[in-house]
Amino acid sequence: MVITEMDRADCLALLQKCRIGRLACSASDQPYVIPISFVVDGGYIYSFSLTGQKIEWMRQNSKVCLQADELENKRNWRSVIVYGRYEELPDRIGTKVQRDRAWALLSQHAQWWEPGGLKPVAEAPAPHLFYRISIDEVTGRKARPIA
Amino acid sequence: MVITEMDRADCLALLQKCRIGRLACSASDQPYVIPISFVVDGGYIYSFSLTGQKIEWMRQNSKVCLQADELENKRNWRSVIVYGRYEELPDRIGTKVQRDRAWALLSQHAQWWEPGGLKPVAEAPAPHLFYRISIDEVTGRKARPIA
Repeated sequence: MVITEMDRADCLALLQKCRIGRLACSASDQPYVIPISFVVDGGYIYSFSLTGQKIEWMRQNSKVCLQADELENKRNWRSVIVYGRYEELPDRIGTKVQRDRAWALLSQHAQWWEPGGLKPVAEAPAPHLFYRISIDEVTGRKARPIA
Repeated sequence: MVITEMDRADCLALLQKCRIGRLACSASDQPYVIPISFVVDGGYIYSFSLTGQKIEWMRQNSKVCLQADELENKRNWRSVIVYGRYEELPDRIGTKVQRDRAWALLSQHAQWWEPGGLKPVAEAPAPHLFYRISIDEVTGRKARPIA
């Protein structure tokens, strides 16, 4: 098995392919990590969530880290890590375009398996909120069997 | 789909079953998350690693969070989160018993897919180190389809 670093283009290609990642945030240096569904578009990771601990923590401290991977087997895998900043996309002028774009992209995928992934009900006020994470830095490693 | 909280026994049973988790640490409130191989024994999560960023960060700030899950499909999944403290198990009197125990447990499983998971070579000095995380608090959620 050979482990090598991935370049930025490879990292972004893998992120584009992944639908589920693990998002870490922290408050008072206590880390917290949860699975999220996401899509990547134009230098940002888009997702949505119910309000709860992770949203509260990211409002306090916008520094986050997302990890995503593709695991074929123990000798053949790729894993990327993104450092970025949390940014909420409230339903109002100024963020409407990004919010609509996020929803258009997110709704193309049916991989909602986390609690935050329930489809918002347009008819009733929903506690869901949209957010994005800037891809400030991305690194990755891949393992391949020795040919 | 019905999402419910898991009790401690359910959480620990899932952790016992999982071999891979995502470990989050943080330094100066910058979170960092990476996949690790692990085993659970007697209130601790055991793993080993090459030295590197995560070890340096956990030496600085021992507060960590580990997430592990079993994802059948979007309507049928379980996910747990552990809060705990990082503790290194150096190769010396005082931690030899835990270290040997960790290695005995870890070597039973062939799921080494992360860089830290390469088998230590007994003949040469290896930069691997063993560590454990106390399971101070564990919570979990599960989703089941509506019958």
